[in-house]
Amino acid sequence: MRDALFYLDRESDLSLRQQIRQKLVDGIRSGAFPGGTRLPSSRKLSQQLKVSRNTVVSVYQDLIADGYIVSRQRSGIFVNDDVAKYRLEPASESGEASSGLLVWPNRIKYRRVATANADEIANWNAYPYAFLDGRFDASLFPLSEWREANKLALGVAAVEDWSTGDGDDDDPRLIHEIRTKFLTRRGIQASDNEVLLTLGTQNSLYLIARLLADSTAVIGIEEPGNFRMRSLVEARGATVRPQTVDEDGICIDAKIDDCDWVYVTPSHQIPTAVPMSMERRRELVKAATDGDFLIVEDDYECELNYQDRPRPALRSMDKDGRVIYVAELSKVLSPGIGLGFIVADAAFIRRARELRRALFSHPPLYNQRAAAYFLSLGYYDSMMMRLGKTLGDRRLELRDALSNMRGVPLEISPEVGGTTYWVKAPRQFNVAYFVQEAAEHGILLEPVADYYQDPGRAENCFRMGITSIPQDKIVPGVRRLVELIRRLVRGQVEHLDTAVGTWLRGPALERFMSGAVIRYQEVYGTVCTIRLHADGRMSGDMESASEDTDSGAWRVEGDLFYRRWDRWNYAAEAAYYIVVDGDTVKYFNHDRQIVDSAKVDSA
Amino acid sequence: MRDALFYLDRESDLSLRQQIRQKLVDGIRSGAFPGGTRLPSSRKLSQQLKVSRNTVVSVYQDLIADGYIVSRQRSGIFVNDDVAKYRLEPASESGEASSGLLVWPNRIKYRRVATANADEIANWNAYPYAFLDGRFDASLFPLSEWREANKLALGVAAVEDWSTGDGDDDDPRLIHEIRTKFLTRRGIQASDNEVLLTLGTQNSLYLIARLLADSTAVIGIEEPGNFRMRSLVEARGATVRPQTVDEDGICIDAKIDDCDWVYVTPSHQIPTAVPMSMERRRELVKAATDGDFLIVEDDYECELNYQDRPRPALRSMDKDGRVIYVAELSKVLSPGIGLGFIVADAAFIRRARELRRALFSHPPLYNQRAAAYFLSLGYYDSMMMRLGKTLGDRRLELRDALSNMRGVPLEISPEVGGTTYWVKAPRQFNVAYFVQEAAEHGILLEPVADYYQDPGRAENCFRMGITSIPQDKIVPGVRRLVELIRRLVRGQVEHLDTAVGTWLRGPALERFMSGAVIRYQEVYGTVCTIRLHADGRMSGDMESASEDTDSGAWRVEGDLFYRRWDRWNYAAEAAYYIVVDGDTVKYFNHDRQIVDSAKVDSA
Repeated sequence: MRDALFYLDRESDLSLRQQIRQKLVDGIRSGAFPGGTRLPSSRKLSQQLKVSRNTVVSVYQDLIADGYIVSRQRSGIFVNDDVAKYRLEPASESGEASSGLLVWPNRIKYRRVATANADEIANWNAYPYAFLDGRFDASLFPLSEWREANKLALGVAAVEDWSTGDGDDDDPRLIHEIRTKFLTRRGIQASDNEVLLTLGTQNSLYLIARLLADSTAVIGIEEPGNFRMRSLVEARGATVRPQTVDEDGICIDAKIDDCDWVYVTPSHQIPTAVPMSMERRRELVKAATDGDFLIVEDDYECELNYQDRPRPALRSMDKDGRVIYVAELSKVLSPGIGLGFIVADAAFIRRARELRRALFSHPPLYNQRAAAYFLSLGYYDSMMMRLGKTLGDRRLELRDALSNMRGVPLEISPEVGGTTYWVKAPRQFNVAYFVQEAAEHGILLEPVADYYQDPGRAENCFRMGITSIPQDKIVPGVRRLVELIRRLVRGQVEHLDTAVGTWLRGPALERFMSGAVIRYQEVYGTVCTIRLHADGRMSGDMESASEDTDSGAWRVEGDLFYRRWDRWNYAAEAAYYIVVDGDTVKYFNHDRQIVDSAKVDSA
Repeated sequence: MRDALFYLDRESDLSLRQQIRQKLVDGIRSGAFPGGTRLPSSRKLSQQLKVSRNTVVSVYQDLIADGYIVSRQRSGIFVNDDVAKYRLEPASESGEASSGLLVWPNRIKYRRVATANADEIANWNAYPYAFLDGRFDASLFPLSEWREANKLALGVAAVEDWSTGDGDDDDPRLIHEIRTKFLTRRGIQASDNEVLLTLGTQNSLYLIARLLADSTAVIGIEEPGNFRMRSLVEARGATVRPQTVDEDGICIDAKIDDCDWVYVTPSHQIPTAVPMSMERRRELVKAATDGDFLIVEDDYECELNYQDRPRPALRSMDKDGRVIYVAELSKVLSPGIGLGFIVADAAFIRRARELRRALFSHPPLYNQRAAAYFLSLGYYDSMMMRLGKTLGDRRLELRDALSNMRGVPLEISPEVGGTTYWVKAPRQFNVAYFVQEAAEHGILLEPVADYYQDPGRAENCFRMGITSIPQDKIVPGVRRLVELIRRLVRGQVEHLDTAVGTWLRGPALERFMSGAVIRYQEVYGTVCTIRLHADGRMSGDMESASEDTDSGAWRVEGDLFYRRWDRWNYAAEAAYYIVVDGDTVKYFNHDRQIVDSAKVDSA
């Protein structure tokens, strides 16, 4: 055996020892090194592979202990003949691909539920500008803390403890941590038999829909609302009653009384991110008591809050036990583990546990124990604190970037405290096409039509989230979006050469601008007043809740008007051609296309 | 602060650093150390706790970085006021336990399916003698290899790789390992889109039942057979057609043609452990083609084989794609992770993936990657080899222990290659009561009535498995079982003082025994012939497939007959009173109760 058996990859995530083991095992298993094959001595193999002899010796010793190879005195190391027993020669019948003649759709009894597009953005990480909500970029994963928790869960004593779990029980230590570190913060008292672990909120909703919905059930769902829950109950043949959402959350009207149960997302309404007001919460709990319906409370993103203090969960305001509470450990962890829970009366939890057993017994106990350590060491809390700060910064960055957009026909709804912005495009805009076009330019936006039972009500809106995009990508992403929109609307865009009004050039431009007071309507609906002083300075005044002012400099050179803010617009200098039409000032860019317009004071 | 804040536990599985962190976090979160509380200096705290100062400094640094505490120059370490923001004062409405007035059963739409007793042996680890099948004692868990695989899955590059997974996709590396290291061994060729990961076989069966069963479906299930699958399809309202099992597996008769699909467990039939013969496999696949029905093949325990070479999977013999194959990574790992898979035509897998998304998206990607490493390093194979040997030894131990039972009215079926023995009690025996009584004596047996659609056919049988019991517990467990049975049947047991026949005492006993040839009917139905030679030696000859002989010594002292085998009966000396009735020899123990009987040659 003069040639090397295989080569090692110095860049691999596997150690040299692990690589040698893997390659030998693969060779033996695949039959490349059949039973009885003599392997090179540890000395020779270590020379061939340029690793220390000890490394090879250690691999050989392990493989001997495992029965893959045998050492025969004075004659060397050989592949064990017994290993071959574990390989099966394919039966003569096998080896041919199946003809695939069966017509499957006729045999499948499961009523297909249209899946929502919004759930199908696969591979979003590959996009440079993913403005999504509820998916988290890898930089937020708490790697070292998570490792520590997992290492603890794999301690000898810990393994003996959790591995003896059986039946339907969850890890009592995780239940304890969730009760004391999560639920108390939401104002919820729960005993052990009122909590059931699941694989995350989707899993919780499935269990609830399976238990509480059938073809006779009437279920109230927010409009717009979570299409995942809507599809689950529709698949059970239930009737969905859409309940409009206003700025206080779900609207409570007479028809809500007909419902057997109502599904709500009070912390951050899905998809509008509106938090349910305290008054509406009281109203809903009272309506449920009066009308004897149940409430399924999906406490989505309850831990991320940018407004005032978090409001208590409906479950904490419920005296009858008619609220079924659903939440999950932050989705930041969810690529690794999805762990959610249902809190409800023991009678309900018992039935949910029975159903869970039919599905899969319980979430892996190893993950449960690791999560218990993660919570008990306070890593979950500190992760959420860090996350709150990071996402808060991203929110502001996106708000500023959006408010700096010019000449873009989009309306951004007032902020409501979530990790997402609601954006409305003009009626003639085809949002589905636009979202697709944006994706092709590396920008992911979330269409919202799927959230409506009546998609016509979506009114050309889409969402922009910030959980998935690092802060330094937000401004470049919005810039690229603006370019794309400009390109898309170019056809309808006013061009300098054919503009309505008077093109002001040279000295005429300078005379007009000096001393002018110009009012912009901002994308958020607030007004910004700009004063161009004769000395070349300018000042701006934003009439928003958080009064904001800035100053800067302007000048005219040739036919172009230049301006640069000290802070606004990233303190970048911009140049425009100016056309005046009555009291309207129009701004045109280098490409001679209109990018913005404003009113000039008649004064 | 003169008293220590808290105490440390030197026996804990947490390090001192981790304990200090945990106690401080708990104190801060619970409000025991409110915002603004001054904490002891690192020097003082390290003195109080008798740990190195560096340890305390490191905890303080971490907690400062995490925002729990702040360091104010020259004045000390304080609990951060901001942390309190994360605690929620319960709303005035909360704090009261719910009255639980709701009548839940009326609201729950899910048709309850009787759960089987056999599935409800919780906390089995606490029993000293758990003769169960399919549950594994903690000593079999491959701790160090599992740790290594998890550590690799938590490497920086690995996390970046798996954590960016999204949508419905499974980890391509695990799919690759399952295809190349598991399926090829079963003779199965599958492409990536023909494999779907699940949380284990229960989860796979749920998906299949949900997709393929409704109230119009007719489903063939082995009788006795897996009650888990039976309940799943019954919950869907389907008709179950029981198909008898014989020594070659499921019987194929005319009524199997009516089935839409047939569920079988060919490797080790559940619950009898009979492997399906090669001929029956061919017959079944042909019947399915001729009758145009589907086969769901649950390849239960395909990797544990004690007979001849493993037989290829039905899926590997299937040309039409009508076999849906189900298997899982060994249950040895299942307390940690349950990972199973379905292999079927891509059209079916696509629908199963859609349904899985409604349930829970996908099995945790972190576990998937760890399992991929575990397989790729060959640890899975070596674990299975070790396991095969360990369980093989346990099987023999249990076989010998059972065959050494005397005076116990049980019949043990011939061995069939599984990890379980089928035991039949006499008709007058109440097996349900007996199993319960045994459990109270620390012995867990498996009743089998649940496996029958018609429980009357269970004929007072139970199972004894060996996956859950360490080898050194098997003989003591069987001894204890024998004692219990004797106690239970004492009422019916013949007593020396009232025995029918002649009580042979002293010299009469010696004369009778010397040169006698005695034939025992063994519990397995084989015959054992014993010759008592005049010189005090004796020889035994077992007419089993594996001819077994032994020799030993006998003697008479007073009214007692003593004998000791060189190997049999654990080479323990036993003493009996002897009564002869015609050609029957009866053995009575010290308590003067009958423990065995045999025939003496008339020669």
